[in-house]
Amino acid sequence: MKQTTISDLKNHVGETVTLKGWLYNSRHSGKLVFLIMRDGTGLCQCVVFIKNVSQEEFESAKSLTQESSFSVTGTVKAEPRSVGGYELDVQKMELVQLAHEYPITPKEHGIEFLADRRHLWIRSQRQWAVLKIRHEIIKSVRNFFDSRGFTLFDAPIFTPNSVEGTTTLFETPYFDEGSAYLTQSGQLYGEAGAMAFGKIYVFGPTFRAEKSKTRRHLTEFWMVEPEMAYYDLDMNMDLMEEFVEYIVQQVLTNRRAELEILERDISKLEAVKRPFPRISYDEAVEIIHKKGLPFEYGNDFGAPDETAIGEDFDKPVMVHTWPKEVKAFYMKQDEKDPTKAKGVDMLASEGYGEIIGGAQREDNLDLLLEKIREHQLPEEAYNWYLDLRRYGSVPHAGFGMGIERTVSWICGIHHVRETIPFARLMGRLKP
Amino acid sequence: MKQTTISDLKNHVGETVTLKGWLYNSRHSGKLVFLIMRDGTGLCQCVVFIKNVSQEEFESAKSLTQESSFSVTGTVKAEPRSVGGYELDVQKMELVQLAHEYPITPKEHGIEFLADRRHLWIRSQRQWAVLKIRHEIIKSVRNFFDSRGFTLFDAPIFTPNSVEGTTTLFETPYFDEGSAYLTQSGQLYGEAGAMAFGKIYVFGPTFRAEKSKTRRHLTEFWMVEPEMAYYDLDMNMDLMEEFVEYIVQQVLTNRRAELEILERDISKLEAVKRPFPRISYDEAVEIIHKKGLPFEYGNDFGAPDETAIGEDFDKPVMVHTWPKEVKAFYMKQDEKDPTKAKGVDMLASEGYGEIIGGAQREDNLDLLLEKIREHQLPEEAYNWYLDLRRYGSVPHAGFGMGIERTVSWICGIHHVRETIPFARLMGRLKP
Repeated sequence: MKQTTISDLKNHVGETVTLKGWLYNSRHSGKLVFLIMRDGTGLCQCVVFIKNVSQEEFESAKSLTQESSFSVTGTVKAEPRSVGGYELDVQKMELVQLAHEYPITPKEHGIEFLADRRHLWIRSQRQWAVLKIRHEIIKSVRNFFDSRGFTLFDAPIFTPNSVEGTTTLFETPYFDEGSAYLTQSGQLYGEAGAMAFGKIYVFGPTFRAEKSKTRRHLTEFWMVEPEMAYYDLDMNMDLMEEFVEYIVQQVLTNRRAELEILERDISKLEAVKRPFPRISYDEAVEIIHKKGLPFEYGNDFGAPDETAIGEDFDKPVMVHTWPKEVKAFYMKQDEKDPTKAKGVDMLASEGYGEIIGGAQREDNLDLLLEKIREHQLPEEAYNWYLDLRRYGSVPHAGFGMGIERTVSWICGIHHVRETIPFARLMGRLKP
Repeated sequence: MKQTTISDLKNHVGETVTLKGWLYNSRHSGKLVFLIMRDGTGLCQCVVFIKNVSQEEFESAKSLTQESSFSVTGTVKAEPRSVGGYELDVQKMELVQLAHEYPITPKEHGIEFLADRRHLWIRSQRQWAVLKIRHEIIKSVRNFFDSRGFTLFDAPIFTPNSVEGTTTLFETPYFDEGSAYLTQSGQLYGEAGAMAFGKIYVFGPTFRAEKSKTRRHLTEFWMVEPEMAYYDLDMNMDLMEEFVEYIVQQVLTNRRAELEILERDISKLEAVKRPFPRISYDEAVEIIHKKGLPFEYGNDFGAPDETAIGEDFDKPVMVHTWPKEVKAFYMKQDEKDPTKAKGVDMLASEGYGEIIGGAQREDNLDLLLEKIREHQLPEEAYNWYLDLRRYGSVPHAGFGMGIERTVSWICGIHHVRETIPFARLMGRLKP
């Protein structure tokens, strides 16, 4: 018998096929048992009619517990009223394992209860849909860069020093070298890559030992960081908006069923089309002040400020040209206003806040050295990085996009802990 | 003027284009300066004729130092005798930055000297070619699984316990949870993923604090780990060989120029076609003994043993059905011989040794519990993993392929430290 998957049933209408999976739900009435099977690709109602199977099989079908593993062989029928649009008329059923009493039931469970059972929770429809969309987003990220001449450039996880301060670093003993710190960003290494390959992207996990329990922070999260030689701030923004539009449109094209499971307002995503608004930091501050929020010029935006800015637009907005004190040492000083840095953040629509941070980088050796001293960073540790300005320095730019925040926005879900298979937060290291 | 890249010159013959890059090499004789530019996509000879440019430009071209950044505008000419097959007749040249004296010269440098300057070393042809092939391999890995219904499933890096013993773990303080250990393998999490999605692959960095300085060990390395529900050992081996054939053939198709830079014997790669030989551990031991190596039955293979087995075949060989003592607790016991485990290793051709380790997993709750006790593992820590056998256990299998070893084999290079942008080894944490 031909084995297939639920997602492929549309190609087998009228044929007899075998499906292998788990019991998602069931009901029976007299001579019929309705088994909703999940096989990891979708759901399918399998109809067991007492006259089509042996008595043993019928009894077995009736007594299947939630999440029991089993296989069925039967005829595929289009049935628009059924979940997924197809049904199986069962001729043969085989139990693989009768599941113990399953802890996750249709009733409401607390978030800690579910998080403790994350290895099982991912089997439920919403979590499954979120992680399918996560896959689509990551695939789109790679396709986008691979098809535009970028070279994948894996930056190291173990680093001898930090990019953005030492208070939020995870540290591990490293043989005779003292300590290694887990990377917070692959950017500096990515800049070395851009000088060797022209255009690169770093894509891997990054780590922050942040003691904040918010819905937007994980201690371990994935980030994609493209870096381009011979790019300025405007080219960087062009790429950012093309990139984000591409990802959103790919999800709309390929994962519509999953968005529907999540009851996502699809019209909001359909609006994510270039060009995105570009406003300066100064203009953004005006918006915040107009709305009466108590914001002091020169500070970084907090979550309420980001929401205030973002809600004025129906697509992501890019905020550029920041007071240099707010931003990292490596950002290029603005030629027109030396108090400003050529940084740019992208705030997602619908108040989801920052999903991208980027900048044109300082390519002038002397100015960069000055910045390192101003920020009281250990000059010796950055000597290799300064080499990139000694040996063929060029204008260059790049950005970093947090995967979990992007998944959260596109899926329309509140907390980033549901956007990765096993979220790690302060207070959450298991399972 | 139209800006393009060196890799795209073939589409611009006869046109006037601008290239932006760095000086790889140069020579001059009288009225001509020959500048070999690299732009990250390839090399191109730019011919500066004294009559075609200003005197300033000509002098600037003559005085360019190695790795200086510059742009040129000129006419594209097909020239089979030139590197890359095309030349640029320069009409305009612009210096971006005159590089300081570049430390890496065509003369021989020691490996530590080069490793200290890895951020620059990656600009040289061989390193560039290796990392381009690395990108191609990773892209092929993802394409392979994405196009076969697998879902990407990122396993956590921070784990509360270890898979393969505690002596080689990196450890970091984790808030009030005590210590977190850096993952050595995402497999156990991947098994949870397979039960939710059917077929998944974990793909991320993994860590081993191994105190061994060999040419095959890094402390941080990337691994891809597919895991499939309703798969047995034979199906696992079918997938392994299809997978490895695909990767090698993709590199041959898309990265032939890079293989040639590395002077790789391409015929050896062309031979990597299914089916691959499958031999049992017992048969492998026979081969070792026939060659007179001092190997004791029941041990794991060492590097010389792997070489002895591999050199008998012109393609990778799969060694299956191992004495259970050699293998991890989670491998399924062989039904025909309970002293054996259903593990399988793939040894690369040409003596490159193990690149894949895999197995059918133990799906019987009682046998798995027995194994955990036999191996004296902390039962409590594996309780969540045992849940996968309580709630819909199914036959399943998977494997893990080390990216750096695979790159090393396909590129035909001796040491894995050249197969990743910034290798981390015992004694090497910088830059």
